[in-house]
Amino acid sequence: MNHYDAIRLFAKMLKNLEQWMDKAEAHAKAKTFDVDVLALARLAPDQHSFAGQVQLGCDQAKFAAAYLSGKPAPSHPDTEKTFAELRERIHKCLGFLDTVHEKDLVGSEERKVSPPWLGGNWLRGDDYMVHVALPNFFFHATTAYAILRHNGVDLGKMDYVGSLPVKEG
Amino acid sequence: MNHYDAIRLFAKMLKNLEQWMDKAEAHAKAKTFDVDVLALARLAPDQHSFAGQVQLGCDQAKFAAAYLSGKPAPSHPDTEKTFAELRERIHKCLGFLDTVHEKDLVGSEERKVSPPWLGGNWLRGDDYMVHVALPNFFFHATTAYAILRHNGVDLGKMDYVGSLPVKEG
Repeated sequence: MNHYDAIRLFAKMLKNLEQWMDKAEAHAKAKTFDVDVLALARLAPDQHSFAGQVQLGCDQAKFAAAYLSGKPAPSHPDTEKTFAELRERIHKCLGFLDTVHEKDLVGSEERKVSPPWLGGNWLRGDDYMVHVALPNFFFHATTAYAILRHNGVDLGKMDYVGSLPVKEG
Repeated sequence: MNHYDAIRLFAKMLKNLEQWMDKAEAHAKAKTFDVDVLALARLAPDQHSFAGQVQLGCDQAKFAAAYLSGKPAPSHPDTEKTFAELRERIHKCLGFLDTVHEKDLVGSEERKVSPPWLGGNWLRGDDYMVHVALPNFFFHATTAYAILRHNGVDLGKMDYVGSLPVKEG
């Protein structure tokens, strides 16, 4: 599994997330409530809302792609409050991920990654992927899923995982 | 990031999970309730409990290590109902993960992985890691975390992520 595979996995999961949002919208319609109530739902009062989980999940994917390829990360301010705005945020993120090609990530394992929150210190590129990007991306994706699930949206494990490249026989 | 790194990441996260359980026990003690109530807590009535999330997270790590190395997976029946029993389950899983060495995973990217639920079909070893093991492992670890967080346990992102191999300067 190289870093390009990981970035494409993030893109796949963000597309799965949009399908969870489709189901949330269907649920809201059936129950006649405003789906944007779910954008502000959270599992604990001091944890991020669904909107925050989507924003942070997108950022984990975006910054991994940017730091590991050396491309500048586009700025995506955290202003979204509605499902429609969150879908736009996901699309902007996916658009950026599509600009990062396999060749841009050659040698990224040894690239020095020095995000602002490390205060001048750094991680090996591969350590950034393993210890920061993967756990944090899945944290936010799964928490977004959990918020919808907790609020009665009809989601199951196959919605989470999405399609698998199964080979026959 | 090779498959050995991924298995070690699972081991690291399972050790982090034990520290979340330490905090859950401290919380239960402070609030004078039985911590094993949390073993049966869940975010939705048709989703697995905390105990189920720990069992399934362990299994994702165990089966990834087994399928990708060719070693037989030890049987770990899902009988745990208490924090003490869940800790034992985690230790059994960690013990098995420790028997899988980097050399056992050489060439695992192209190994045919054919778990029973694929009904005779298969996945390339690397596709199994990317599309099944990583998303599902983190699903269960994060949902376990979310259940504790939702029940008031004082957890934060650094408890989730654990230690980072930061390099100075």
